[in-house]
Amino acid sequence: MFLSRPFIRNLPNSRSYSDFVKVVEVGPRDGLQNEKKIIPTPVKVDFINRLSETGLQVIEATSFVSPKWVPQMYDSAEVFKQIKKVKGVNYPVLIPNAKGLEKAIEVGAKEIAIFSSPSESFSKKNTNCTLSENMERMKEIICLAKKSDLTIRGYISCIIGCPYEGSMKPAVVAALASALLDLGCYEVSLGDTIGVGTPKKVKSLLSEMREVDDLSKFALHFHDTYGQAIGNTYTGLDEGIRIFDSSVSGLGGCPYAAGATGNVATEDLLYFLHEQGLQTGVDLNKMVQVGHFISNQLEKKNQSKVGNALLTKETLKKVCV
Amino acid sequence: MFLSRPFIRNLPNSRSYSDFVKVVEVGPRDGLQNEKKIIPTPVKVDFINRLSETGLQVIEATSFVSPKWVPQMYDSAEVFKQIKKVKGVNYPVLIPNAKGLEKAIEVGAKEIAIFSSPSESFSKKNTNCTLSENMERMKEIICLAKKSDLTIRGYISCIIGCPYEGSMKPAVVAALASALLDLGCYEVSLGDTIGVGTPKKVKSLLSEMREVDDLSKFALHFHDTYGQAIGNTYTGLDEGIRIFDSSVSGLGGCPYAAGATGNVATEDLLYFLHEQGLQTGVDLNKMVQVGHFISNQLEKKNQSKVGNALLTKETLKKVCV
Repeated sequence: MFLSRPFIRNLPNSRSYSDFVKVVEVGPRDGLQNEKKIIPTPVKVDFINRLSETGLQVIEATSFVSPKWVPQMYDSAEVFKQIKKVKGVNYPVLIPNAKGLEKAIEVGAKEIAIFSSPSESFSKKNTNCTLSENMERMKEIICLAKKSDLTIRGYISCIIGCPYEGSMKPAVVAALASALLDLGCYEVSLGDTIGVGTPKKVKSLLSEMREVDDLSKFALHFHDTYGQAIGNTYTGLDEGIRIFDSSVSGLGGCPYAAGATGNVATEDLLYFLHEQGLQTGVDLNKMVQVGHFISNQLEKKNQSKVGNALLTKETLKKVCV
Repeated sequence: MFLSRPFIRNLPNSRSYSDFVKVVEVGPRDGLQNEKKIIPTPVKVDFINRLSETGLQVIEATSFVSPKWVPQMYDSAEVFKQIKKVKGVNYPVLIPNAKGLEKAIEVGAKEIAIFSSPSESFSKKNTNCTLSENMERMKEIICLAKKSDLTIRGYISCIIGCPYEGSMKPAVVAALASALLDLGCYEVSLGDTIGVGTPKKVKSLLSEMREVDDLSKFALHFHDTYGQAIGNTYTGLDEGIRIFDSSVSGLGGCPYAAGATGNVATEDLLYFLHEQGLQTGVDLNKMVQVGHFISNQLEKKNQSKVGNALLTKETLKKVCV
């Protein structure tokens, strides 16, 4: 039985003036799953434990997807078992199907995330099922999750554009978000998977989202493929969004644009939010150190501009923040 | 004798709703002067000629500074002589002193740029003179430039923060901008030299600039050291600024933050502006090709996210622009 969501569609939607922003760290999952190098379990555990010390409230720990599809997530159960569960921090895990949910429950996960997209082609290519098959899959997962008292976060991919179908209609995204909330998701993260969002499009989408529910129910999940993530975040804040997903050191690439970058870097997001006078509870300097750590482990250049700028002794004193 | 500027300080300052944005390309000067690798004259000439084919109206070609200070600009006279002067394109050159001006006039420059800063320390460290010495120097340059009918663009560095003195007061920047306009600059480019600008600070500065003159007299010159340039550009546009400086492929580093990036990448700026429905007259795809060219010549990674994303065949079709 699903939790019923209060029917508030016709109430005036208030814009949030709260000065607190929740940052959802997706580096260990969305980030690592798109990195070529597969890192060992102890390193992943260390990585997540370090993130747990930064002040983050939410760290998406892993994905219970078959390693046949995502080899980087081969050790999801072990990672989840071994990480410290710090009080006050949630560790959601991504679940593609009932089998994945079973494994997550076995290791004690309390929160799961499910995903969908408004694009039929993306759904088929990304998850090998049609939109309606995915909807049935999600209903099954949610039904079982509720029996185990798990909380559920929803993800929508390709909210602005899809690599196969082009621009997505805001109304279609909104309908899907509505369905996810109705099914029992406490929050829906709207993902600009290929990073083609820009302020105008984000605004347009959020106008549509206001017809669905209060914007406090939604997060924005920007990829920085075209360097537009911070501008989009600014728009999102302006429109009243107060939850943003990001990936430390900008982990993750883009499977649809070889050589392109992935998620917006947590350090760059934090810098922006703090400079705008907003609170996150997250320590930027600690995050910069974690970004440095994981970039070294992956043997790749840190994709965070803030990380690169701050990671020199000389600049730590000079930065006017 | 200086051109007198109409006294319009007390007239209501209109916000620009124009949908045209002038992009000033500073890659060949501000970009290259901060790159470690010194490239040969024929390559620089080729680079500028390619930029001239993209639709840009302004390309800052070089700097007549002593190569003792900036070795990268060792060949300024030769570069300026050899580049094609395409009709409809301006090729300003940066001038630090009367000697540099003399050389610029010899090679036929029609427009010059002069620079200043609101920070005494930055002035001393960057140009080896105090603020008042620099002011005298600029007066001398402008006086001579006017005799040769040159047009003059002014630059102000460190408009938000200085690596030595910290935050800069908007009123101080405004006073300096006013002085430059009074001296005869037709436009003043406000440079966030160390990239510490964020929307709130940019807004605050521009409020002060409105007291000086119409915002159409000002350009914004953002460095992307902390990944904030596009967000700042968005704010600038919103406040009515319609001129932005940028550097193809994000050329240029930051001498105050080793490993950090430099100017905002022209490709990323264009992508943002076009997506917002603004006109620039510049062909993004051509710019991406120039960015690719110069990054290869410098043997460095292209710093433009848009450049990296578009420079693969597969994505050229998939991008939803």
